Amino acid sequence: MVLKSEPSGERIVIIGGVAAGMSAASKARRLRPDIEIFVFEKSGYVSYGSCGLPYYISGMVKSPDDLVVYDARFFKEKRNIDVFLFHEATAIHPDKHSVLVKDLKTGEESEYSYDKLLISTGARAFVPPIKGIDLEGIFTMRLLPDGIKAKEFIRQRAPRKAVIVGAGYIGIEMAEAFSKLGIEVTMLARRNSILGTMDDEICKVVEDELKKNGVTLLKSAQAGEFTGENGYVRRVILRTGESIDVDMVLVATGVRPNSEIAKEAGIKTENHRNAIMVNQQMETNVPGIYAAGDCAVAYNRLLERPVYAPLGTTANKTGRVAGTNMAGGAASFQGIVGTSTFKVFDLQVARTGLTEKETVREGLDHISSMIESVTRAHYYPGASRIWIKLIAEKSTGRLLGAEAAGKEGVPKRIDIIATAITAGMTGGEMASLDLSYAPPFSTVWDPVLVAANDLKKKVEKTE
Amino acid sequence: MVLKSEPSGERIVIIGGVAAGMSAASKARRLRPDIEIFVFEKSGYVSYGSCGLPYYISGMVKSPDDLVVYDARFFKEKRNIDVFLFHEATAIHPDKHSVLVKDLKTGEESEYSYDKLLISTGARAFVPPIKGIDLEGIFTMRLLPDGIKAKEFIRQRAPRKAVIVGAGYIGIEMAEAFSKLGIEVTMLARRNSILGTMDDEICKVVEDELKKNGVTLLKSAQAGEFTGENGYVRRVILRTGESIDVDMVLVATGVRPNSEIAKEAGIKTENHRNAIMVNQQMETNVPGIYAAGDCAVAYNRLLERPVYAPLGTTANKTGRVAGTNMAGGAASFQGIVGTSTFKVFDLQVARTGLTEKETVREGLDHISSMIESVTRAHYYPGASRIWIKLIAEKSTGRLLGAEAAGKEGVPKRIDIIATAITAGMTGGEMASLDLSYAPPFSTVWDPVLVAANDLKKKVEKTE
Repeated sequence: MVLKSEPSGERIVIIGGVAAGMSAASKARRLRPDIEIFVFEKSGYVSYGSCGLPYYISGMVKSPDDLVVYDARFFKEKRNIDVFLFHEATAIHPDKHSVLVKDLKTGEESEYSYDKLLISTGARAFVPPIKGIDLEGIFTMRLLPDGIKAKEFIRQRAPRKAVIVGAGYIGIEMAEAFSKLGIEVTMLARRNSILGTMDDEICKVVEDELKKNGVTLLKSAQAGEFTGENGYVRRVILRTGESIDVDMVLVATGVRPNSEIAKEAGIKTENHRNAIMVNQQMETNVPGIYAAGDCAVAYNRLLERPVYAPLGTTANKTGRVAGTNMAGGAASFQGIVGTSTFKVFDLQVARTGLTEKETVREGLDHISSMIESVTRAHYYPGASRIWIKLIAEKSTGRLLGAEAAGKEGVPKRIDIIATAITAGMTGGEMASLDLSYAPPFSTVWDPVLVAANDLKKKVEKTE
Repeated sequence: MVLKSEPSGERIVIIGGVAAGMSAASKARRLRPDIEIFVFEKSGYVSYGSCGLPYYISGMVKSPDDLVVYDARFFKEKRNIDVFLFHEATAIHPDKHSVLVKDLKTGEESEYSYDKLLISTGARAFVPPIKGIDLEGIFTMRLLPDGIKAKEFIRQRAPRKAVIVGAGYIGIEMAEAFSKLGIEVTMLARRNSILGTMDDEICKVVEDELKKNGVTLLKSAQAGEFTGENGYVRRVILRTGESIDVDMVLVATGVRPNSEIAKEAGIKTENHRNAIMVNQQMETNVPGIYAAGDCAVAYNRLLERPVYAPLGTTANKTGRVAGTNMAGGAASFQGIVGTSTFKVFDLQVARTGLTEKETVREGLDHISSMIESVTRAHYYPGASRIWIKLIAEKSTGRLLGAEAAGKEGVPKRIDIIATAITAGMTGGEMASLDLSYAPPFSTVWDPVLVAANDLKKKVEKTE
């Protein structure tokens, strides 16, 4: 073990160079041109958009390189950030202000000192301990190398049938990707509904879209075993005993934060998923050590407490906050409200705030409303149906959450509501917003206003 | 003169049955099933969307009936609202609580008493006193009959060349409509720029779109005279002497409120355009008389005073408020912030709040920022450029306005900003919003957040 490259001055060390890590590095560099910035990334890629993987699989995005925003050379040449690819941090020594890093190509371990350290190790796909899980042809879809491996398998073996275990965002996006390649898809949803992050009304709309596009959805269905031939998966055996022939399996059953290295160094993690605990400055409980992105909790401004909700947007924002603070600036992460979106076939789906289920879980008194409207003036070609569900606090009318689905304009309409929620508006206040109108873009009363008026009436009735 | 149909009980009379009038009638009926509701409409149509006229002209909308939401029979049968078509109110007698109405088919005049009266007479196209303006082939585009007349002319005479006088929303939308019919369009902009409602940066983007689509734009150009042959317009002679051969002319030089009937009855109008003065309850200065829609002012919550800004959305909202109050309920119009949008060819354009020009006119200290970004993840097919200009109060950073243009997602992004403005957010606060992200819908930092961050930096620099 050698103590490599003693820092001449200050040094920031960053473990993990995808969204949060590279955002932090770039921000720190802008504020401090003079310090050393080292990024250790265990894969061969930095700064990429893993949200684009379904579109690489479907062939819509041609090369994995298209998903990479900037490569390691760019960061060195343009921003003087030293990116060490295929370098895995194996231990943090807070007492010595150093990290132990293994060069995965040589196997050599080195110790690097830091003045400030960022843990941005991300999350990994959760792989349930199912018999046969190690067979060839079983994939997860989290990191760029996951996508490359799966795409290569599809190219070489031209699978005709796939099972997707899990019916969350990734599972659903991948159902579309596989279908576009002509692969017959069966999805297994563990519960009696898909999408744990949405209420039943919207799930129903998504289920209809999946079915309309030929995806077989099995609810309350769990894989009990995978069996194979010549080492390749050939059959998924459900817990009920039923079996499904397959050429390929995607396991999309959620993610877990890569927080072990932090925990072993005495850094506090939360109990639910072991995500790294941080405050709004993205500081851990150990001085000088920050965490950001999918390995850490994020402050939820609606719930007024940190939650674990790994998303690319949050990773970029929290990384920037961490980078600012590590460089001696002062930034605070203002928090999420629970906004997210995805597309499946011709349907756009989005949510913000709390679902009704979550409201119940939080013990909040609430009232909800669900409307169906259209996206354009009734006479304008291309007008299509849109569904919006709103949830508000019963006693005050304050907006708590929204979910929506439709063919167009869904995520931005949810963003309008996310803004209203952040501002603490009631349904009535949202109903009085001056939103834009022209026949190609909405009805005179935009669906958001229709939903808000409907909610307002319900709140008034209970008063 | 006969005093027709003495009311048995209470009666609401509404003058003008397009957007505000029919919204008011419907709302009043929901609250009061027992009263009489009379609507006098001088044309043969009620409850239609005149914003759809350009799409009827272009042929995208097949029939003028498609623009009608509900017809007079529907209102009678389903809502027990008596609509009198081809009936023009000619005088209001506040002292007698009555209106004088002329049946345009018979010429007969009758007096109708009211308990509450709504003036929702709308606005008319402003026609500048240009020599030759009465020639055949010269049109305005405001009411449904205007559209029907112009479309009929196009069908019969197949014009090949048109001049559009005026470069506002209607002029620009009609430039697209004419172009789609293969009519060669020359637009005359009175000033050195188009769109008095937008700042130069966005006007430039719109001008480029017009030019790209073959529209000839003449700036600082005014029609001095129209000359014709056989009673049909053939030539537009500019004030500079230059002349343009035409088969058709559209005059789109703004609108004027139909407020004469109100003014003659002693109802207060404002000085600028003579729009009817109302408070946020849509009450005029005369007890029992309300006004709503394009004939009246509307409260601007950002400027904290009434302004004249005739738009379909506002007409619907203010009509509903008036209807509620006339029926004995209690409603208050929360106000506009200056949001509007339109489409021209492949470009979507929208604004909210104040433009920089307006900020200057209001004497507000301000700072502005303009960004160019993209609408989707860089690797997602269909990603296109979007421009967002933000204006904020210099001393506080509070958002004052926004303008945007691009191929997709423009009006809803402006609506996000309209919501932030309504909530009194600063650029920094908007930059910290939790907006949705998925590759088909935005970049990880949505253009709204990119713009907000850029503005925030500028505000910080001046501190």
